[in-house]
Amino acid sequence: MSNDPDSASRTARDEGAARVMPEVLEANVARLLDAWGMPAAHAAASASVLVQADVFGIESHGVSMLSVYEGYRDTGVLVMSPEIGVVRETPVAALIDAGGGLGHYPSGLAVDRVIAAAGRAGMGVAAVRNSNHFGAAGVYALRIAEQGLLGFAFTSVGKASVVPTRGTQPMFGTNPIAFAAPAKRNPPFLLDMATSTAAVGKLMVAAREGRELPPAWAMAADGRPETDPNRALERRLLLPLGGVSTDTGGHKGYGLAAMVEILTSLLAGGTYAPLRSPEQKLFDVGHLFLALDPGLFRERGEFESDVDALVDALRASPAADAAQPVLVAGDPEYAAQAERRDQGIPLSGELRAKLEAMFGRAGLALEIGPT
Amino acid sequence: MSNDPDSASRTARDEGAARVMPEVLEANVARLLDAWGMPAAHAAASASVLVQADVFGIESHGVSMLSVYEGYRDTGVLVMSPEIGVVRETPVAALIDAGGGLGHYPSGLAVDRVIAAAGRAGMGVAAVRNSNHFGAAGVYALRIAEQGLLGFAFTSVGKASVVPTRGTQPMFGTNPIAFAAPAKRNPPFLLDMATSTAAVGKLMVAAREGRELPPAWAMAADGRPETDPNRALERRLLLPLGGVSTDTGGHKGYGLAAMVEILTSLLAGGTYAPLRSPEQKLFDVGHLFLALDPGLFRERGEFESDVDALVDALRASPAADAAQPVLVAGDPEYAAQAERRDQGIPLSGELRAKLEAMFGRAGLALEIGPT
Repeated sequence: MSNDPDSASRTARDEGAARVMPEVLEANVARLLDAWGMPAAHAAASASVLVQADVFGIESHGVSMLSVYEGYRDTGVLVMSPEIGVVRETPVAALIDAGGGLGHYPSGLAVDRVIAAAGRAGMGVAAVRNSNHFGAAGVYALRIAEQGLLGFAFTSVGKASVVPTRGTQPMFGTNPIAFAAPAKRNPPFLLDMATSTAAVGKLMVAAREGRELPPAWAMAADGRPETDPNRALERRLLLPLGGVSTDTGGHKGYGLAAMVEILTSLLAGGTYAPLRSPEQKLFDVGHLFLALDPGLFRERGEFESDVDALVDALRASPAADAAQPVLVAGDPEYAAQAERRDQGIPLSGELRAKLEAMFGRAGLALEIGPT
Repeated sequence: MSNDPDSASRTARDEGAARVMPEVLEANVARLLDAWGMPAAHAAASASVLVQADVFGIESHGVSMLSVYEGYRDTGVLVMSPEIGVVRETPVAALIDAGGGLGHYPSGLAVDRVIAAAGRAGMGVAAVRNSNHFGAAGVYALRIAEQGLLGFAFTSVGKASVVPTRGTQPMFGTNPIAFAAPAKRNPPFLLDMATSTAAVGKLMVAAREGRELPPAWAMAADGRPETDPNRALERRLLLPLGGVSTDTGGHKGYGLAAMVEILTSLLAGGTYAPLRSPEQKLFDVGHLFLALDPGLFRERGEFESDVDALVDALRASPAADAAQPVLVAGDPEYAAQAERRDQGIPLSGELRAKLEAMFGRAGLALEIGPT
């Protein structure tokens, strides 16, 4: 139809594209992780968190992560059948050792514990150490909010990519902050944000589409913004939220990244990535989860009604462009969820081919049925 | 010396400039607040927090705030002799009603309570409602960290100035996040940041110096960035951290502002400013304080040593410009503190004249000694 090479490569990528119902995709992922040697409960936990990210439209943290995990497995960065231990415990707190495995299963245990603690004492905190990637932080914060509690989830990251203000070398991962709060009529307020301006996934999209990067995303070797997406991907020097300069608030994003590092790897007793010795293969990532019962301060239902009033006021506030109304944190995720739980998760031809090859290497077939 | 009008106005402002030792300034502020009808303990608490902000070089939140408070007092926005009550209490939590007065004194009570709760249970949370301005959030987070705990302080703001992404009307205050963590050799890590890119005080400085604003600071009526500082001050439409566009991460700053609003005015049962009725004079601001004992997860001293290692690694990381080394959150505050505890707090001639007039209106004299 067109000689435009961009369009041709898009077509190549879209060949074999499919829609898969979430539960079908989840069963496939669990089978793969099982074949990789993960205990059934761990495989189920990882599959659930990964597919929920795809349901929410956060594709960078969905099943596309499996190729990263496969690489970690092959290079011994990941323990497939870890021993999980509760190292410390008080009525309000728990410390879990993840045994060097994926973060999804031990994070689920940690979430259960902060919910139970909040039921007893009104609040609870749990840290996980010796862990690895745990998927989308928002999934955990939301699970806490679904129990009527305010939920926080934070994590450190095994590889540093974010450069501190004035610096030239990466000293933090994208160290996300997730926060969720229950409403009455509305779904929970759900903020899930990397403390960098943009994640690596967004650089990849820009490179594929041949678009220049906004100056707040990445840094060149000389400390100035890098707007070429290919060079930015090569160097992997991401900028903190606010960009390269204190004038645009970059020091605030940097400060938030450091705060998350302190709350996760340092508080849990994990490893701060830039200080990891070359001999240490396991990332020893740290996570932190916090739950807070609004009933500590408000009568039942009052807080949730006030969240509704806030959300309604924001949605009703005038927009610069009437076609682009003011959104509330979580809106894009819930919109994607409504569509994808009904129509299925779109898999690009490229991702589908990657998954099929990966399943093949594990002696399995990807079974996503008729498309 | 010069015909440059800028230089002339600078000279006019600097006439009468003085250095005042912190304890002298604090005693003066306490006398003024006492004359305004504040109970002695309240006046002392406010004076201490205000002067500590000046000691830290955060002049926007120091004694310059007194003229704002005077206006609030004159218009009945502020109760000068409030009844403070502990409305709810559990072993880990407290809710304090500030009685419509300034936030410094009840926030001090709340900080004492989260420290005590963390001593008993390893963590504590306290909310304050029916309050007003509480000064610099970092002062409270630091007080918690000085007890060997991780400390958080958040507050809502009585007047909305920050515009949500895609919006055109202010829906949040500058809703700050403060976080402090104890180290062993270093002073505590101390992050204290408005969730807007810049505070109003910075716009005023730019206007005075005739400098254009960076595009991430303020918005024009049409939804685009406003770079004229005078027009920006007139409209008071501040942008969230990340600026006007989702491309530069503005939705993240907006999300953080909403998170802080939920954690403060909503959780404490205060008033969300955009929904305050015109009849309600009191701002009914909410604050939240949280303390977390690293001993829940680490052996004594381990966490603090790891904070040192993080701070040292950041300071030692290569800088784009060797003359501008990488800083850590709190560094500018501690540098100002070292200089000002020794040399005194610089008062501009302009601020000094304002204070003298204000003291005069209260039937007092500003007594800052020889300069």
